[in-house]
Amino acid sequence: MELGFIGLGRMGMNIAHNLLSKGVRVVAYNRSPGPVSSIASKGAVAAGSPLDLARKLQGPRTIWIMVTAGEAVDAVIESLLPFISKDDTIIDGGNSYYKDSIRRAEKLAGKGINFLDCGTSGGLEGAAHGACLTVGGPHAVFQKHEELFRLIATGEGYTYMGESGAGHFVKMVHNGIEYALLQSYAEGFQLMRGAPFDLDLHEAARVWNRGSVIRSWLLELAEKMFAKDPHLEKIGGEVGGGETGAWSVETAIELKAPFAMLAQALSARYDSKTNESFANRFVAGMRNEFGGHEIKEK
Amino acid sequence: MELGFIGLGRMGMNIAHNLLSKGVRVVAYNRSPGPVSSIASKGAVAAGSPLDLARKLQGPRTIWIMVTAGEAVDAVIESLLPFISKDDTIIDGGNSYYKDSIRRAEKLAGKGINFLDCGTSGGLEGAAHGACLTVGGPHAVFQKHEELFRLIATGEGYTYMGESGAGHFVKMVHNGIEYALLQSYAEGFQLMRGAPFDLDLHEAARVWNRGSVIRSWLLELAEKMFAKDPHLEKIGGEVGGGETGAWSVETAIELKAPFAMLAQALSARYDSKTNESFANRFVAGMRNEFGGHEIKEK
Repeated sequence: MELGFIGLGRMGMNIAHNLLSKGVRVVAYNRSPGPVSSIASKGAVAAGSPLDLARKLQGPRTIWIMVTAGEAVDAVIESLLPFISKDDTIIDGGNSYYKDSIRRAEKLAGKGINFLDCGTSGGLEGAAHGACLTVGGPHAVFQKHEELFRLIATGEGYTYMGESGAGHFVKMVHNGIEYALLQSYAEGFQLMRGAPFDLDLHEAARVWNRGSVIRSWLLELAEKMFAKDPHLEKIGGEVGGGETGAWSVETAIELKAPFAMLAQALSARYDSKTNESFANRFVAGMRNEFGGHEIKEK
Repeated sequence: MELGFIGLGRMGMNIAHNLLSKGVRVVAYNRSPGPVSSIASKGAVAAGSPLDLARKLQGPRTIWIMVTAGEAVDAVIESLLPFISKDDTIIDGGNSYYKDSIRRAEKLAGKGINFLDCGTSGGLEGAAHGACLTVGGPHAVFQKHEELFRLIATGEGYTYMGESGAGHFVKMVHNGIEYALLQSYAEGFQLMRGAPFDLDLHEAARVWNRGSVIRSWLLELAEKMFAKDPHLEKIGGEVGGGETGAWSVETAIELKAPFAMLAQALSARYDSKTNESFANRFVAGMRNEFGGHEIKEK
């Protein structure tokens, strides 16, 4: 199997490594050349430009895009269009807004080029060892690429969710839930910190991960985080991200669905810009644990 | 090892079974006699009264209480007092309010009787095969009973959290987080149900449990629930419970800690009395999955 890969950020680099380790021929391009050299030293074929990448792939080509949501995705697709052909496939594995994915799928379909939108979850660990993939687009195109998804997911962690946009819609809701789960744990740990007892938060996280109703992967990361920094003294309170959570709330408004938890969790992120609360430091530290997202040291 | 056991509801019965299977001599009493006969047929020693239970235990006695929080706990303790002695220990494994546990510990200490407050999590499955226990009280009394806690937790899922009340305080916060996690998933699934795609919610839960950031034991239960009832058509929307969630919010107010997620999740339960929303049916069904709590069929 071979794959074109554009976008070697934290997530992209880990997925590319994973595929190389499974014997996939990866032709890799990135706007800045450093990561291309890095992945080439691990066995990837380096591409110096979109043209170079297209030339180094046999048709029909499959190209995975893993860049920041928004204009960068359109720019990458535009840069590929002169060099790719009918029946080639572009897979957007990033966190794109689902309506953008519907628009892109329609535009590319007009040129005979296939497009799949793929929500990719699991953080850096998942990208490296087995991500969770929710895919939207024409079912036949999904089926043609099922082996690729199986390799990236390392097993059963991939699925077809529906027509174009469905994969990124489900990922958007996933992220909305993720914000709300993080904020729920954050409030709970902050409440324990203010308790009339001297509670060991690392020990609470540890024991809750062993048989409680609220055990989860996020709580396992909290346990790891508290083991390293029991009072979260090294973590600044400003929480980054926010785009997918905002889309969740906007989508709930558009669909007239209740969104109180989603909105509160999103609002807390905005509040975090000027608030070094324990809860905000908790969420900032957790995002670093699963996604490698930058934390501002206190 | 031997243990007196009072309160053979769903949780109590499962814990008593678990201890019997591990060779503990269990002397069991329950206000209604049916469950006593049932557990006696599995090898427990039946007690017909608190007096009978006390007589059938060798001193120093340890008696586990697993009854509904509030007056029932005080009534059970009062009923035991004439028949137990200095250095006996009462362990309250139920969902008592932590201030009640502090009061009870002080009162019993005045009579030379030990008291431990133990938060018990993990639902019916945990009670049967390995619960998560957070214990408060004098450290030496905890240490004396560590083997008992290890048996109920089936391993590392128990801990000492601090002085009297700390065990139930931590369990209260656990339950507040539990409400908020359930409500977060509920909102997300309701949003997907209203999506402009025909999304398979069971498939979304299944794939999210395989490598996503939001994977958890609760999400595994959601996957099971959707497998049985994909549109939650058999579940009424009224969500029971509410006491420990209310204490979480009241405690946050008292300690001046933020509580937006906890309060919204609690408020949604009150709202559920007159609201058959998908989110409310989700939470009602989930409580049935983990705790066997009654659901009103639609």
